[in-house]
Amino acid sequence: MKTLLYIDSSARASRPDTDARGSHTRRLAAHFMNRWQEAAPGDAVIHRDVALEPPTPVTADWIAGAFTAPEDRSPEMSAVLQESDVLVKELIEADVIVIGAPMYNFGIPSTLKAWVDNIVRVGVTFGFDRNRKGDPYWPMLQPGKHLVILTSRGDYGYGPEGRLEHMNHVDKALATALTYTGVTEITTIAVEYDEFSDTRVEDSLADALAEIDSLVGLMANGPAAPGSPERRQTVAAG
Amino acid sequence: MKTLLYIDSSARASRPDTDARGSHTRRLAAHFMNRWQEAAPGDAVIHRDVALEPPTPVTADWIAGAFTAPEDRSPEMSAVLQESDVLVKELIEADVIVIGAPMYNFGIPSTLKAWVDNIVRVGVTFGFDRNRKGDPYWPMLQPGKHLVILTSRGDYGYGPEGRLEHMNHVDKALATALTYTGVTEITTIAVEYDEFSDTRVEDSLADALAEIDSLVGLMANGPAAPGSPERRQTVAAG
Repeated sequence: MKTLLYIDSSARASRPDTDARGSHTRRLAAHFMNRWQEAAPGDAVIHRDVALEPPTPVTADWIAGAFTAPEDRSPEMSAVLQESDVLVKELIEADVIVIGAPMYNFGIPSTLKAWVDNIVRVGVTFGFDRNRKGDPYWPMLQPGKHLVILTSRGDYGYGPEGRLEHMNHVDKALATALTYTGVTEITTIAVEYDEFSDTRVEDSLADALAEIDSLVGLMANGPAAPGSPERRQTVAAG
Repeated sequence: MKTLLYIDSSARASRPDTDARGSHTRRLAAHFMNRWQEAAPGDAVIHRDVALEPPTPVTADWIAGAFTAPEDRSPEMSAVLQESDVLVKELIEADVIVIGAPMYNFGIPSTLKAWVDNIVRVGVTFGFDRNRKGDPYWPMLQPGKHLVILTSRGDYGYGPEGRLEHMNHVDKALATALTYTGVTEITTIAVEYDEFSDTRVEDSLADALAEIDSLVGLMANGPAAPGSPERRQTVAAG
């Protein structure tokens, strides 16, 4: 049995299958979860909506608490970290992390960045030792976690080798931060062309939904053992 | 006379010249503003601290309001956009935008992203027309605005051609979003090596402060006319 952490971050709370101005990423993520539950109905699902319930941005007190050893923390420090503790626990429990991440002004929504800043926790999801030989930090999550980024872009060409790849600070930024904590497999599936009044967005959405079907087929019935070769298959879109 | 918009975003409210665990970016930005005020004491300064007063993340109501023509907005829509109106007005008034932007988990702080998402406003800072030939959007800020990004990084090599440039989603992400609105000149000055317990961070900080001195010397007494060649000189650091 696997555990899935399923995160929505679009400010649009409705999906475009029920609302023409709804969220593509909510639709992609719901489709992924529906397909997964058909394939592996016994798997556990943790759902987190960072748009509707934004995580608190990190503060000076948060940083001071996180960089204090747990046994030395004051009750106030522990209280400030409580929300982060919950978010980190969800990440640690997850075998698969599915993030619906729309591109807002070339980056992730601010509420999703607040989630990232709460789950990158020293001594918990990454280690840090100033006196260590080589890099002073290392990932602490158990290897084998698979991050699936379901993203949407108004324009097109933000994928690998695309004309606007250098302006993409969404999936690459998420992949960089989550890799730092030890996520070892990453797949991105994107809907593009949302800004254009033609059939390209419909085609892109149909492609993305089909890619999700393939990906779930490969993942949901694969072995849960961390890092097994069968789980290394990925599908890339852009 | 010029107007400067001066933005702090570090969660650390104190500066390292008064507190060993303080913020490098607050120190750099304060140094820039002090030097500027010595050189051009009559210039206007707008200060905004997005860490201490985080902008509200955009919501579905915000998006609906922004994409409704001003004359068609309900009073509720106008109310939701009021905070964004203030932030956009500050940006429009500014000739120079100085942003203290620490790298948090390879990106900007979530509160600074909330600011970005509030100032990229359709019909105000960028135009959008689905039926336009070529790109359906265009920048609306008056040309000639100069963005100065003062950033800090725990590790090193995130600058142009650096070993970790591909993991930098701070200054490149800010530059991308602000260029989209029409900012035409961008300079980045960075402090690196903060994670290491040696003299490299002190050297990097000294270099950054000296670069700020040079930059202010070039900028503060330059002509205010938008896009004049004398204002195109930039200093790049990494």
